[in-house]
Amino acid sequence: MNSEHLKARYSSIRAKSLDLVRPLKAEDYVVQPIVDISPPKWHLGHTTWFFETFILLPHLSSYQVFYEQYLFVFNSYYETLGARVIRTDRGNLSRPTVEEVMNYRHHVDQFMMELMASSQAEKLSQLIELGLQHEQQHQELLLTDIKYILGHNPLFPAYDPSFKENLQHDASTKESINLKEGLYWIGFEGDGFSFDNEHGRHQVYLASAQLDQQYVTCGEWLAFMESGGYRSFKFWLSEGWDWVKSNGVHAPLYWHQIEGEWWRYTLAGLQKVETQEPVCHISYYEADAFARWSGKRLPTEAEWEVCAGQRPWGALWEWTGSAYLPYPYFKLAEGAIGEYNGKFMVNQMVLRGSSIATPLGQSRPSYRNFFHAPLRWQFTGLRLANYL
Amino acid sequence: MNSEHLKARYSSIRAKSLDLVRPLKAEDYVVQPIVDISPPKWHLGHTTWFFETFILLPHLSSYQVFYEQYLFVFNSYYETLGARVIRTDRGNLSRPTVEEVMNYRHHVDQFMMELMASSQAEKLSQLIELGLQHEQQHQELLLTDIKYILGHNPLFPAYDPSFKENLQHDASTKESINLKEGLYWIGFEGDGFSFDNEHGRHQVYLASAQLDQQYVTCGEWLAFMESGGYRSFKFWLSEGWDWVKSNGVHAPLYWHQIEGEWWRYTLAGLQKVETQEPVCHISYYEADAFARWSGKRLPTEAEWEVCAGQRPWGALWEWTGSAYLPYPYFKLAEGAIGEYNGKFMVNQMVLRGSSIATPLGQSRPSYRNFFHAPLRWQFTGLRLANYL
Amino acid sequence: MNSEHLKARYSSIRAKSLDLVRPLKAEDYVVQPIVDISPPKWHLGHTTWFFETFILLPHLSSYQVFYEQYLFVFNSYYETLGARVIRTDRGNLSRPTVEEVMNYRHHVDQFMMELMASSQAEKLSQLIELGLQHEQQHQELLLTDIKYILGHNPLFPAYDPSFKENLQHDASTKESINLKEGLYWIGFEGDGFSFDNEHGRHQVYLASAQLDQQYVTCGEWLAFMESGGYRSFKFWLSEGWDWVKSNGVHAPLYWHQIEGEWWRYTLAGLQKVETQEPVCHISYYEADAFARWSGKRLPTEAEWEVCAGQRPWGALWEWTGSAYLPYPYFKLAEGAIGEYNGKFMVNQMVLRGSSIATPLGQSRPSYRNFFHAPLRWQFTGLRLANYL
Amino acid sequence: MNSEHLKARYSSIRAKSLDLVRPLKAEDYVVQPIVDISPPKWHLGHTTWFFETFILLPHLSSYQVFYEQYLFVFNSYYETLGARVIRTDRGNLSRPTVEEVMNYRHHVDQFMMELMASSQAEKLSQLIELGLQHEQQHQELLLTDIKYILGHNPLFPAYDPSFKENLQHDASTKESINLKEGLYWIGFEGDGFSFDNEHGRHQVYLASAQLDQQYVTCGEWLAFMESGGYRSFKFWLSEGWDWVKSNGVHAPLYWHQIEGEWWRYTLAGLQKVETQEPVCHISYYEADAFARWSGKRLPTEAEWEVCAGQRPWGALWEWTGSAYLPYPYFKLAEGAIGEYNGKFMVNQMVLRGSSIATPLGQSRPSYRNFFHAPLRWQFTGLRLANYL
Repeated sequence: MNSEHLKARYSSIRAKSLDLVRPLKAEDYVVQPIVDISPPKWHLGHTTWFFETFILLPHLSSYQVFYEQYLFVFNSYYETLGARVIRTDRGNLSRPTVEEVMNYRHHVDQFMMELMASSQAEKLSQLIELGLQHEQQHQELLLTDIKYILGHNPLFPAYDPSFKENLQHDASTKESINLKEGLYWIGFEGDGFSFDNEHGRHQVYLASAQLDQQYVTCGEWLAFMESGGYRSFKFWLSEGWDWVKSNGVHAPLYWHQIEGEWWRYTLAGLQKVETQEPVCHISYYEADAFARWSGKRLPTEAEWEVCAGQRPWGALWEWTGSAYLPYPYFKLAEGAIGEYNGKFMVNQMVLRGSSIATPLGQSRPSYRNFFHAPLRWQFTGLRLANYL
Repeated sequence: MNSEHLKARYSSIRAKSLDLVRPLKAEDYVVQPIVDISPPKWHLGHTTWFFETFILLPHLSSYQVFYEQYLFVFNSYYETLGARVIRTDRGNLSRPTVEEVMNYRHHVDQFMMELMASSQAEKLSQLIELGLQHEQQHQELLLTDIKYILGHNPLFPAYDPSFKENLQHDASTKESINLKEGLYWIGFEGDGFSFDNEHGRHQVYLASAQLDQQYVTCGEWLAFMESGGYRSFKFWLSEGWDWVKSNGVHAPLYWHQIEGEWWRYTLAGLQKVETQEPVCHISYYEADAFARWSGKRLPTEAEWEVCAGQRPWGALWEWTGSAYLPYPYFKLAEGAIGEYNGKFMVNQMVLRGSSIATPLGQSRPSYRNFFHAPLRWQFTGLRLANYL
Repeated sequence: MNSEHLKARYSSIRAKSLDLVRPLKAEDYVVQPIVDISPPKWHLGHTTWFFETFILLPHLSSYQVFYEQYLFVFNSYYETLGARVIRTDRGNLSRPTVEEVMNYRHHVDQFMMELMASSQAEKLSQLIELGLQHEQQHQELLLTDIKYILGHNPLFPAYDPSFKENLQHDASTKESINLKEGLYWIGFEGDGFSFDNEHGRHQVYLASAQLDQQYVTCGEWLAFMESGGYRSFKFWLSEGWDWVKSNGVHAPLYWHQIEGEWWRYTLAGLQKVETQEPVCHISYYEADAFARWSGKRLPTEAEWEVCAGQRPWGALWEWTGSAYLPYPYFKLAEGAIGEYNGKFMVNQMVLRGSSIATPLGQSRPSYRNFFHAPLRWQFTGLRLANYL
Repeated sequence: MNSEHLKARYSSIRAKSLDLVRPLKAEDYVVQPIVDISPPKWHLGHTTWFFETFILLPHLSSYQVFYEQYLFVFNSYYETLGARVIRTDRGNLSRPTVEEVMNYRHHVDQFMMELMASSQAEKLSQLIELGLQHEQQHQELLLTDIKYILGHNPLFPAYDPSFKENLQHDASTKESINLKEGLYWIGFEGDGFSFDNEHGRHQVYLASAQLDQQYVTCGEWLAFMESGGYRSFKFWLSEGWDWVKSNGVHAPLYWHQIEGEWWRYTLAGLQKVETQEPVCHISYYEADAFARWSGKRLPTEAEWEVCAGQRPWGALWEWTGSAYLPYPYFKLAEGAIGEYNGKFMVNQMVLRGSSIATPLGQSRPSYRNFFHAPLRWQFTGLRLANYL
């Protein structure tokens, strides 16, 4: 990538983050209702800190640190780089203010421009690309975290009244797709950007399978609810059932029953649940329980990837029945970058696809997303596989 | 109080709340680092809600509710009035924004002015006075909560660089004061405002006692620390010692040892600990342990009140050795107002005096402040009594 | 006390502990269902350890430690003597076995007999008496802890089918007793044994008062329950109400509603609740809520003590409205014995009287018992005072 | 299996459970130090309850329930059969006594003999076999739970001073084994007993691999410890590192450093750590961290199973790098039996092999054991795979 192209890409992606927060009030940038989400101003600072720490500090001799304390405040989980802020504390920090974070972004952007105009640009382009991919990952979290913050406020403020969570669903796509028993290749292949966890293309043997083309809909989910799906342990994994009981779960996240009707909070505010739309904001436990209830199962990540080219993607991450584990040839990279994905490879489940919150180009058939089984603030849905 | 006087008093006290928050950034109004403190915007809304709920709604027929949801959002602990917001959730709410809260205050103020100009003013003046006293109590909390929010931020921002926490201490006042054994009267007497918990003036019999005139100083506290005061269980109440160990307590709140020297966070920012200043921000457990260490004891609230006229007050609330319990003739008032003080009469200790954060006229010799034994974010200090 | 008398008293009290555990199965000695109670074998070991540690080790040169580890295992809260067993761990220890503990008791008893036959007997008689009082205090806990262990077993085994918790109640004693305003003396006076916390006889000034002679009965409690006493916050202290809600409290401890009728677990097994019997096993929160519901109040410990001679005692500890705090002249004794009572003087309430579980001679009018507000596994009841 | 053979097998396996508890004192049967283990008397009752509930009650009309309450007390996690005892409560129950549990076993055994002598024996032989396999699984837990109970007692009592945890280790077996890339079959095949989770024999494609023949030894583990393995986050999974820090983990379970030397608690009491013995009682987190430290990786369960025939098994369960998930054709059985394994298929890791605690015939190459990542009270060790 030449220098001009790189600078343009950098500017465009960095600007996108600011577009995302434009509808917010200053107060919205600060709070952290649950440990899994982060305050929007933290996302804006953290992605900036990434460029400062991994690129400017080691590679641009003229760089001047914006404010020493930010190296600490906006650190994330990278233990290689010293003490991290305890994640649960993020929501207690009123300073730096939004304005100060914006100044920090501007400061780092200027030096990044200087760097990308220099002779080092080419050498560092891969690392810069990693920083941009990292920023895009946080753009997705920025939107899902904002939805959580506003959607858990008793005033239910809209993020953007014209926002369409319109989860298109082509009702004409009725049938399923058949996968023949045999050997298949999975894993990343090609020249573009990709993460370490999808590397090591390798063969897998798959039994014959049949995958539904349609997403599970809100209408089907209502049927599950009405038939007692949330009240009978027999559909649930043991720890899923504990989760249901100790949290009083009885519907997908953001669903509210108001005077007998089901509504859901969207980024455009409260809207009626539409039966034909794909169901969204469900946990792995719920996905698995629904599958049992319907006599089906979740596809594995290999089945999903092998069929990816043959069927439409929607606007939802899809839970798979695969645990997030290293691929056969996976080995940790050295240094802080090595912590990127590998240290999370236990007790999480793989999701495949992408969501309306995913920046363009951020996903691909080999992309492996992962979350803990009870989490559901991402745009998560499911398509099932049939027992043969 | 005539109508003009009442309106002037109302305006002046309401304006004082706004003066207190003027140095804040919008972000500072939102957070709640620990359950005991509240976000500044909540204080501003809650005191307004008090006037709306107890005065405007029942007594001003022309009153229009500002926003129905606020009746819920800004409720406090008054269970009589319906569901309260769970206290721990306050710090998760980015909306209403500061601007909206300010509009709410303005709306209520206008209707209050209308009410106070009406023929009802006199009849309601006592209730309005209660609302103003309530606002002043929250002004004290506003300042102590702001100190906590800024003082627990890793950037240690000053609230007001010119703020003087100057806890005056007249070094010439060396001696102690003697209290003769006998019968004394305690409790409120007079015409001004007072709370239900100080009513029921009654006699108490006190043994002879000797009360120090001087506040315990930072220098004395450093001696306690250096002699192992925080490391030896023998000075501590059993649950005080558990508190020390499980929280790693080793100095008063806001104290930091930086390169061998002790600093403390003040509303003007970090400052060096001055040995001759009264020690501040200590818990009841610490006060009691220090007393044992020094071979003295805490005075009772009756001793304190009886001697109040004879000695200087400082800028600190003083822990007493008295539990917060009803006076002999105390009986709960009917209705929501009755919940004001009586429901807290268990497992709290009485503090007497006032602090630099206490609005003028808010305290008096009979005023009974009370907090749980481990709390120390108020401006709390101590003066001791001697064993005879 | 002469040597023979002392030995007889020692033998008799030590034997009483064994009488109390005789109905138990080996398994009953081991468990600890909640942190507040201790396994019966721990009580038997701990009281023995007290004699070993405070009397035999320092005063009998010929004494041989039974087993070094027991000095640690049976220690309680006396931090002066080194690391204590974490209280919550006691219920995890299957060893030492009951038989081993009995051997330990026998070993210590033999050496105690040797000591009491020696010339040191007289000099140590006060310390030995403290050990015996300590054993008697644990005898009371032994019985209440056994009741908890058996009463929280789904099989509801009886401790002793012939045990009478018969809380006699003279229905003819209808009237109340009047206390005249004035100065009174309280605190221990006399020659017998007493604890440090009741020392320092002193004067108190009491307002005129009227104290009920009758205990609150189960019938009255049922009326409280039926009128919604446990469902309306308005009768409750704020933290009492939190306790009710988070524990789902709806009746005294040990009460069970079976097919529409109320039963209670007694040491003789399940029995029907009798309306005319005094209510038992209530917390301070419940006592206070009942008082508010009935338009009365709890007496103070001074009122109780001043009237003690004029009225019948029952078989229940009575909650008073007094916090457990030091008397005016109270000062901690030096050394481990000094920890006996003083370190608990915060956040507990005083109970007066005695219960069916209290060994004869263990209580007296000046005796100050104390427990935390939510606890109710002791035989706790109440008599109220009237507002005048 | 003919009736006589079945009765003999039944008697022999049931007797084995009693052999295992013979060295215990009554008190040892009662306690439950952590939630993951169960009191020995519960294991004895629960395995008996299994026969009563699934075989005698539905199939033997002459059967008389021993004691109605036991159906509840000894239930486990089978929600199909009604309310289960909360697992954490098991350690609070002193009754039924050990003697009563033994009577219960005897009662059920007699009726089982009657049943197995009847014409129904053949029809029910598979279900009876499941009951026996279930009893054997609990025999393994019985021994590991007993070790935990005694090994966490400050007196460190031996279970059996002559017990050999002798983890044989043939030092001459130095080399590793090579696995060729290709298609392999895994899953149960044959006529004997097997569990549902190992059914559905199917093909997997494996990359070429090299598996160590030797178990990781205590000597190698000491090298890991001495090089700071427990103090550097870089070897650890993120949640593994949290586990290390919040539990202060610094050595395998049961290891104690006494005066500079490492000892470990065994069923024969404390013994010195021998460097050439396989390391045991490690968590998945530790296994994974050790693998990273040594530049190797954990084998997958498929690799392990494919190589099982070619190499020695030791006396340890081996952690694999595979999550416990359903095999491709796995589908839950109907009814209570269907809950046996399937409901645990999330957030657990697979172990392969067997341990010294595993009853003979209980394991086989296709057997899939599984535990949560932090658990280590089973006899768990590891053999590593090499990166190629």
